[in-house]
Amino acid sequence: MTRFIDILTSQKATDRPAFWFMRQAGRYLPEYLEVRASCDGFLNLCYTPDKATEVTLQPIRRFDMDAAIIFSDILVIPHAMGMDVSFVKGEGPKLTPLTSQQDIEKLHTDETAICTHLQPVYNALRQTRTALPQDKALIGFAGAPWTLACYMLQGRGGNEFITAREYLYQNPQQASALIDRITDAVIIHLRAQIDAGADALQLFDSWAGLTPAPYLQACVIDPAIRIVAALRESHPQIPVIAFPRGIGAALGEYARQVKPAGISIDTNTPLATAAKAVEGLCAIQGNLDPLLLAADGDKAAAYVKEQMQMMKGVPYIVNLGHGIVPHTPIEHVERVCETIKSFQ
Amino acid sequence: MTRFIDILTSQKATDRPAFWFMRQAGRYLPEYLEVRASCDGFLNLCYTPDKATEVTLQPIRRFDMDAAIIFSDILVIPHAMGMDVSFVKGEGPKLTPLTSQQDIEKLHTDETAICTHLQPVYNALRQTRTALPQDKALIGFAGAPWTLACYMLQGRGGNEFITAREYLYQNPQQASALIDRITDAVIIHLRAQIDAGADALQLFDSWAGLTPAPYLQACVIDPAIRIVAALRESHPQIPVIAFPRGIGAALGEYARQVKPAGISIDTNTPLATAAKAVEGLCAIQGNLDPLLLAADGDKAAAYVKEQMQMMKGVPYIVNLGHGIVPHTPIEHVERVCETIKSFQ
Repeated sequence: MTRFIDILTSQKATDRPAFWFMRQAGRYLPEYLEVRASCDGFLNLCYTPDKATEVTLQPIRRFDMDAAIIFSDILVIPHAMGMDVSFVKGEGPKLTPLTSQQDIEKLHTDETAICTHLQPVYNALRQTRTALPQDKALIGFAGAPWTLACYMLQGRGGNEFITAREYLYQNPQQASALIDRITDAVIIHLRAQIDAGADALQLFDSWAGLTPAPYLQACVIDPAIRIVAALRESHPQIPVIAFPRGIGAALGEYARQVKPAGISIDTNTPLATAAKAVEGLCAIQGNLDPLLLAADGDKAAAYVKEQMQMMKGVPYIVNLGHGIVPHTPIEHVERVCETIKSFQ
Repeated sequence: MTRFIDILTSQKATDRPAFWFMRQAGRYLPEYLEVRASCDGFLNLCYTPDKATEVTLQPIRRFDMDAAIIFSDILVIPHAMGMDVSFVKGEGPKLTPLTSQQDIEKLHTDETAICTHLQPVYNALRQTRTALPQDKALIGFAGAPWTLACYMLQGRGGNEFITAREYLYQNPQQASALIDRITDAVIIHLRAQIDAGADALQLFDSWAGLTPAPYLQACVIDPAIRIVAALRESHPQIPVIAFPRGIGAALGEYARQVKPAGISIDTNTPLATAAKAVEGLCAIQGNLDPLLLAADGDKAAAYVKEQMQMMKGVPYIVNLGHGIVPHTPIEHVERVCETIKSFQ
């Protein structure tokens, strides 16, 4: 067993917190850029198991985190459901947006279609699990239905997903059917990742904070309940960390209803406030600001140390509150990792 | 006394909730567009008392809200502090960003400089108060220091204010000095608005949700404490509504520490969750989604009715969770206003 899984499954604090960083495999690492340059597009990297395995392992070799997260993207699910997905350099993801009930009904949700398309991701998980030391956990992941629906309805990020939110208001039944279909696909993809070697899972609801209040239950909380319950039923030993980024005042409500093994906290929620809201219901992960990590290694380390002291006795995983930014100096990451590993 | 002020000062529920809408004077109204077209730039409209008065009164004539909010902009404070501020059509506000301690020290914070520059705003308040029926309240407002600092450091909106947040991490002492100077200017501007006829005030911290957790206390909560306390001391009869948009899980903490007369709730926080977090410490305002109002008048009215029923017995002001969007059909606003006025 690993320190990371221990914290999540026993819900107890260990000698020191476990740690990993969202987007720990990425553009701030020269060895990542080298592999990335050898690929014809970002999705090609996700779908080439040797290369995805290599970039997944790179940060572990350098920084010795307690967990590796498989290199992939949340948008492989819409891709597997049959949508056009591409990544344009400097512009982020582009999809041909869904605009009608017909578009929604055409999306694949059967296990064979999803799993055949995503076989390279599962192969990468298998290879990574074999290569990864036994004391390191391997994390699989998926985007949550609301966040995926935002991209699928708007076709791109940005603009606070106004198009997606208006679609929800104008066609609530269609949007609900869409969320249901995505939820099915997410469950299929997460289960297949466990079968391929994932020791834990993270559900990224990156845009939970943009959900209109009247739809928070239906679009964010209910799908997460269904996903966490389905996984607990099929794979009771695999912990799920939920990351409802920006959920704000409803954080406690989310934790009580969804009952994940861990909850990841965004950069804007003080950890003390989060711990109080979650009431010991699950482990807590977070929430160093990637901008602080990029700006000042010493201050980032001091912040993390302070949080670790405050969280003593709480099952706690050090992480960022959002993904590492590309201009992060490697020395800053090293500085923070040393601080965590030497913490007593 | 007006229903609006009653709710805020007695902290008691009235026969029906009071109501007004953020950005109720604006581009969705043809009569506004007409006045706007006669002005050479957006700031020119803010600084021409006759015209600012006219557009402030327009929505009251049409919809009979319980309160008018003076037509102005949060960026008149950086402008009065000596910064270049302009509004480029389709691009939003542009400022020459602050980049050094020297830039920060040059900002005006003395009452004479601020109030001389903003005299046209005070004249508009005086004219509006004279023209406004006695049973309608007049709201003055200011941007909160953190939100203003975001624009002043970044020079524009968007990009989640990464430049401003990095400046905060790299130069925390300078950023703190900036927040202090802005806080002084905000207090001066709010007091002058009361002296010119404002019956209530709203403090807009539109980007509170982007404050990094370690700075939430210093950048958002502490300045708001100072502003609310200063106004309570000089003008104890004038209620202040705070709008820490996106503050999320720290909402209760904010209400307990800042002690405003009312708190405005964003679109993403369910009102029931907000009411629970605020624990009856102040009146609650919000939180119809402007996108729902634009998308569907019937559904918007149904949402508001549901919220009014749920909030019975609570001091409650119906409002949006963010400003009205330009493509909002006037009939949708009428529909919602009728629902509120006929509520029993």
